[in-house]
Amino acid sequence: MTEAGSHPWLSGLFDDAETARLWSPEAQLAHMRAFEAAWSRAGPIAGLWSRDEGAAAAEAIERAEVDLQALRDGTARDGVCVPELVRQFKAAAGASVHRGATSQDVIDTATILCLVATLDLFEQRLNDLILSLSALEDRFGAVSIMGRTRMQAALPMLARTRLQSWSVPLDRHRTRLAALRPQISVVQIGGAVGDRASLGANAAEFSEAVATSLGLSAPPQAWHSARDGISEAASLLSLISGSLGKMGQDIALMAQQGVEEILLSGGGGSSAMPHKQNPVLAELLVTLARYNATLVAGMHQSLVHEQERSGAAWALEWLILPQMAQTTGCALGAARQVLARITRIGPA
Amino acid sequence: MTEAGSHPWLSGLFDDAETARLWSPEAQLAHMRAFEAAWSRAGPIAGLWSRDEGAAAAEAIERAEVDLQALRDGTARDGVCVPELVRQFKAAAGASVHRGATSQDVIDTATILCLVATLDLFEQRLNDLILSLSALEDRFGAVSIMGRTRMQAALPMLARTRLQSWSVPLDRHRTRLAALRPQISVVQIGGAVGDRASLGANAAEFSEAVATSLGLSAPPQAWHSARDGISEAASLLSLISGSLGKMGQDIALMAQQGVEEILLSGGGGSSAMPHKQNPVLAELLVTLARYNATLVAGMHQSLVHEQERSGAAWALEWLILPQMAQTTGCALGAARQVLARITRIGPA
Amino acid sequence: MTEAGSHPWLSGLFDDAETARLWSPEAQLAHMRAFEAAWSRAGPIAGLWSRDEGAAAAEAIERAEVDLQALRDGTARDGVCVPELVRQFKAAAGASVHRGATSQDVIDTATILCLVATLDLFEQRLNDLILSLSALEDRFGAVSIMGRTRMQAALPMLARTRLQSWSVPLDRHRTRLAALRPQISVVQIGGAVGDRASLGANAAEFSEAVATSLGLSAPPQAWHSARDGISEAASLLSLISGSLGKMGQDIALMAQQGVEEILLSGGGGSSAMPHKQNPVLAELLVTLARYNATLVAGMHQSLVHEQERSGAAWALEWLILPQMAQTTGCALGAARQVLARITRIGPA
Amino acid sequence: MTEAGSHPWLSGLFDDAETARLWSPEAQLAHMRAFEAAWSRAGPIAGLWSRDEGAAAAEAIERAEVDLQALRDGTARDGVCVPELVRQFKAAAGASVHRGATSQDVIDTATILCLVATLDLFEQRLNDLILSLSALEDRFGAVSIMGRTRMQAALPMLARTRLQSWSVPLDRHRTRLAALRPQISVVQIGGAVGDRASLGANAAEFSEAVATSLGLSAPPQAWHSARDGISEAASLLSLISGSLGKMGQDIALMAQQGVEEILLSGGGGSSAMPHKQNPVLAELLVTLARYNATLVAGMHQSLVHEQERSGAAWALEWLILPQMAQTTGCALGAARQVLARITRIGPA
Repeated sequence: MTEAGSHPWLSGLFDDAETARLWSPEAQLAHMRAFEAAWSRAGPIAGLWSRDEGAAAAEAIERAEVDLQALRDGTARDGVCVPELVRQFKAAAGASVHRGATSQDVIDTATILCLVATLDLFEQRLNDLILSLSALEDRFGAVSIMGRTRMQAALPMLARTRLQSWSVPLDRHRTRLAALRPQISVVQIGGAVGDRASLGANAAEFSEAVATSLGLSAPPQAWHSARDGISEAASLLSLISGSLGKMGQDIALMAQQGVEEILLSGGGGSSAMPHKQNPVLAELLVTLARYNATLVAGMHQSLVHEQERSGAAWALEWLILPQMAQTTGCALGAARQVLARITRIGPA
Repeated sequence: MTEAGSHPWLSGLFDDAETARLWSPEAQLAHMRAFEAAWSRAGPIAGLWSRDEGAAAAEAIERAEVDLQALRDGTARDGVCVPELVRQFKAAAGASVHRGATSQDVIDTATILCLVATLDLFEQRLNDLILSLSALEDRFGAVSIMGRTRMQAALPMLARTRLQSWSVPLDRHRTRLAALRPQISVVQIGGAVGDRASLGANAAEFSEAVATSLGLSAPPQAWHSARDGISEAASLLSLISGSLGKMGQDIALMAQQGVEEILLSGGGGSSAMPHKQNPVLAELLVTLARYNATLVAGMHQSLVHEQERSGAAWALEWLILPQMAQTTGCALGAARQVLARITRIGPA
Repeated sequence: MTEAGSHPWLSGLFDDAETARLWSPEAQLAHMRAFEAAWSRAGPIAGLWSRDEGAAAAEAIERAEVDLQALRDGTARDGVCVPELVRQFKAAAGASVHRGATSQDVIDTATILCLVATLDLFEQRLNDLILSLSALEDRFGAVSIMGRTRMQAALPMLARTRLQSWSVPLDRHRTRLAALRPQISVVQIGGAVGDRASLGANAAEFSEAVATSLGLSAPPQAWHSARDGISEAASLLSLISGSLGKMGQDIALMAQQGVEEILLSGGGGSSAMPHKQNPVLAELLVTLARYNATLVAGMHQSLVHEQERSGAAWALEWLILPQMAQTTGCALGAARQVLARITRIGPA
Repeated sequence: MTEAGSHPWLSGLFDDAETARLWSPEAQLAHMRAFEAAWSRAGPIAGLWSRDEGAAAAEAIERAEVDLQALRDGTARDGVCVPELVRQFKAAAGASVHRGATSQDVIDTATILCLVATLDLFEQRLNDLILSLSALEDRFGAVSIMGRTRMQAALPMLARTRLQSWSVPLDRHRTRLAALRPQISVVQIGGAVGDRASLGANAAEFSEAVATSLGLSAPPQAWHSARDGISEAASLLSLISGSLGKMGQDIALMAQQGVEEILLSGGGGSSAMPHKQNPVLAELLVTLARYNATLVAGMHQSLVHEQERSGAAWALEWLILPQMAQTTGCALGAARQVLARITRIGPA
C-alpha cells in the first residue's frame, strides 16, 4: 500500500509483506509473461500462427530477459507498459506474439491474477481470525462487560456478544469472498476495441484455452470498459477492512483508563511518557478502515469508463486497487496480531 | 435524493417519484408501525404479554394517529424518533408495546423494508433496460461505428459491441440484486445491547415470528453494530449507477458534433442558443454516477461503528443510504428515457 | 441538507432553518430574479436595449409571477430551469430580457448570492461559538482534566488546553471566511461560451454594473468552467464542520462512564433504557463532519469540468454544495446547543 | 505518490522525482534531525540543560548515524518512529535531547518542512505553466475554435477563451499558495499533551527559537489535534490538480477525430494499433485530478481527531498527504510536458 508499505520505517506499521508480494512488480510481470506465453500457445486455435511457432514463442517469452528501464521509458511514452513489453518479447520470440491482443488484455488479466491470489490469501486469514475470535470467546465469552450504546453505558452483557459482533461479519466476508472468486476469476480478452474481431470464428475456444492455462475462466465477451467486477472486488476489500476497523475502534475504547475492559500485552511506547502503553494496532485498524473507505470512492468513480477504453479511468484503478488490497492485507495482519495480544477481556 | 428530489423545479431532473415513495416518511412510518405491531403480536412467544394483550395492542398500533410534530421534537431531543413514537403507541395501545426492543431494531428493520422494496423495483427496471438495449441491438447492432480507445479512433466495430458493453453489466447487476436480496432481507432484533437478553429462551422463535410477519428472515443475532450488509447494498447501488454513468458518458460523446454516432429526439434547450439540443439525460447519468461514487465512501466510513451502537456512524447512514437509493432510482429512470429517445446509432 | 433537513421528524435533528432559508427555492428564485432585473437595467451599457426598455423590463421581472410547475417541466426538458424562467420573464416583461446571458450566468450568480449570505451567517455563528468557548474557559479553564493521547491517559492538564483546541481552529476559520468572502463574491457573466462576446466593447462596464447592483464584484472574465472558487468554498465548509466534529467526538468521549469529565444537561432519551442520557448533539457533530468530509470529494471531482460548460460536473455541484452549506449550518447550530448544555468540565 | 511513483515501470508515468525527493525518507529524516538539533540548541532558553550541553548534543545529533532497521522495528512497536529515533540520538548525544517534546512535535514539524518546500516548488511550477499558457495564447489565441457547452457545439470563440480558462485558475492558485505559505509554515511544539507544560515560563521564547532555526514561525499554541491547517493545504493541492484535470480533459476532447482542434507531438503508442497516437498525458491529468479528489476526503475525515492526539486520524494523514503532494507534483509536471507538445490549436 502507498509508499508507506515500502518506506524504510513506516513499513514497520503499514507493510504486509505477503500481500505486497502478490502485487509486486515481479508478480505483475510474471502474470503478464504468463498471459503472453498462453496467448502464443493458444494462437493456433485462432489461426494466428502454427502450433510449433506458438510453442516456440511461448518458451522464448518464458525465458526472455525484460529490460525494466526500457519498460519504464515505454510507459512514460505510451501510458502503459505493454507496447514496449511486447516489443521486447517479439525481439526474443519472433512474430508469434500478442497478435490480436491489446494492452488492456494483458494488464487486466495480470491484475485479476493478483486479485485472485489475494482473495485466496484473505480467505485463509479470515479463517484464522475467526478461529482466534472463537478461542477468545471460549476464554472470555462468559465474562460480563458493560454494553455501551451511543458512547454511554447501557446494560451489562456477556463479552461474547461483542466478540461475535466482530466475528460474524468476518464469517459473512468469507462467504462473500467465496462467491466473488469465480465471478472475478476471468481472463480479459478483447483485442483492439474489445470485440475479439481479430480472433476470428474460434475466438471463444481460443479465449477458453488462454483462460484455462492461467487458471481462469473465459467470459463470453471482454470487459474492457465494464468495470463493475473490479469495483465490486474493491468494495469487498473495504467492507473487510471496515469490519476490522470497528473491532479496532472497540478495542481502543475498551483499553481506555476508566473503562479497562481489555488488556493487551506489548507495544505502544511513547517518546514523552514511558509509562504509556498505546493500543497502536487497534488504532491502525481504524486508520486502515478509513483509508480504504476513502479509496473505494475512486474505484466507483472509475466506473464512468468512456467508450472502449478510458486511459483516465483505467489508470485511476492502477493507483487505487493495489493499495486497497494491501490495506486490507495489512488490516488482516494487524487484526491477527492484536487478537494474539489480548490477555484479558472484562474487568481486571 | 437530497432536497433536489423534492425541489420545486430541480425535481424535474432529479426526482424519481416511485423510488422516493419507497423511502418517503410515510413508508418509513408504515414500516415502523408494522414492526411494532408485529412485535406486540409475537410478544407472547417471548412471554412479554398474553396473546390477547398483544393482539389488542397490535391493532391499536395499526390504527394509532401519529403526532408528527411531537415526533420531530422527540427526534431533536433523543437523536432518534423511536422513544417518542413508542410513547405515542403506548398511549394508544397500552403497555404491550416495544418491551425488549430498542430504537435500532425499529429503524433498521424499517430501513430494510425500504431497501428490499427498492431492490425489487430496481430488478424490474434493470429487466426493462436490458430489453430496451436488446431492442436497440436488434435495430442498430449490425451498424458499423468507430471503436474508440483512450479518446482516439481505434478501429471500426459493430454497434452491438458498445451496446453490449452497456447491457452486460446490467445483467450482472440483476444477478447481484438477486443474490443480495435474501442476504439483506433480515429483521433487526437485538434489544438494548443487541443480545436479545430480554427476550429470554424463545428469542429465536420470537424473532422468526416477527420476521415472518414482515416478509423477512431472522438472522441468528442482531447486526446493530455490524453494518457490512448495509454497506454492501450501498456499494451495489453505486455499481448500478456507475454502469449507467458509463452509458451516459458514451452517449454524450457519441452525440458530439464531428462524431454524430447517435441521434436523440427531444429535450435539451438552451437559454442562449436556440439551435442547441443538449444530451441532458446522458449528462445526468454521469452526474448521478459520480454522486453515488462520492456517497459510497461515507457508507464505508460508517462501518467503523463503535461498541453496541454508534449514534454518529448510524446517523451517517441515515443521511446517505436513502439518497443513494434514490440516486440509483433516478439513474434507472433517466436511462430508460434516454434509451427511448435514441432514433439512430451509427452514421447519419 | 438532504431530505433529512425537510423530513417530518429527522428535521428535528438535521434541520437548520436559518441556513435552509438562505438556500431555499424561494431564495434561489429571488436571486435569479434579481440577476435578470439587474441585467435588464444594465443592458443599455452594452447596447442591448434602451434605458427605458431595460428599466421597464426590470420592473416587470421584479413583479412577475413565476409558474413553478412550468419551471419544473422546463428543468426536466432542458436540464436547467433558466430557459423556461426566461420564457416566463419575457412573456411578462418583453424582449429586453436576458439577451447576451446564458443559463450558467443566472444560476451561478444565484448560488454565489446564497453562498455569500451563508458565509456572513457562519461568521456570526463562529463569533458566538468562540464567545461561548471563552466563557467556558473562564468557568472551567483552570480545572485539571486528564490529557489523553492515542486513547490513553497521558498527563493531567488544564481544561483550557482542550477548550482552546476547540476554539483556536474556529478563530482561524473566521479568518478564512473573511479572506474568502471577497474572493467568492463575484458575479458570473460570460454569455453562451463564456467570452462575453455578445456584450460588445462595454462588457466590463456592463458586468460591473450588474455586479454592483447585486452587491458583488465583477471578475475580468467568466468562471463557467473554472470551479476552483466554488470548490475552495466547499472545502472551507468542510473544514469548519470537521473542527466541530473533533469537538463533538471529544465531548462524547468525556461523557463516557468511567471518564465523566463533562456533564451535559437535557436530551438523549432511549426507548429501551430510561436511565440513559445520550450525548446526541455531540454525536451529531461527528456525523455532520464525516458527511461533509464525504461530500467534499464530489466537489473536487467536479473540478474536471470539460470545455465551456459541463452539464455533468455542474449538476454534481447542485446536488452537493447546498447540502454542504446546510450541513455546516446544522453543525454550527448543534455546537452552540451542546456548549450551552455543558454544566461541568472536570471531575464531579 | 503511492507505490506507483517508485514502481519499476509505472514510475515512468506517475513519478515526479523532484517532489518525491521533497517527501523522501531521507528528507523526512533530515527534517526530524534538524528539529531535534534545534530543540537541543534552544533547550537552555527553557532551562532544559546548559548552553554547552545543548550545543554539544545538537552537533552529535547532526552527525549521528541512524539505524533504519531499528527505526522500522520501533515504528512497528510504537506506532511512530520517534521513540526509537530519540533513543538512538540519546545514545549518540547524551541526555540533552528531546526532553519536553513529544513524537508529534517531531513528525508534524518535519511534515511542515516537506510541505513548505513543496509549496515553493509548486509556486515556481505554476509560474512556468502560466508562462507556457501565455505563450500559447500569443501563438494561437486569435484562432477561432468551436465553443462547446454540455458536450455540444455552441458558438465559435477565440482559442484564448479556452486557454484563459486554463490559466486564470492557475493564477488564483498561485495567490492561494502565497497566502497559505505563512499560515502553514509553523513549528509544532506542544509536548506530551500539547500544553508546553514542561517548557516552563519561557515556552514561547523557546518555541520561537526552535521555529526560527528551522525557517518557520511559532504559533501561540500547539496544533496537535487541530488539523485544519493540514487539511486546508491538502484541499489546495487537490484544487490545483483539479484545475489541471480540467485542462487535460479539454485537451483529450480536442484531440478527438472529428474534432481535431489540437495537435500534440510525440507519445501515446498502442500495442494493437500502430497508427494511433494517444493523448496519454492529457488523460493522466484527469486521472491525477480524480485521485486527489478521492484522497482529499480522507484528509477531511482526519479532522475528527479525538482528544490530545489521535493515533488513528494522524496516521491516516501519513498515508494520504505525501501522496497528494506527489500527485499534484506529477500533474504539474505532466501539464508542463503536454503544453510543450502542443503544435497546433484550431483547425488543421
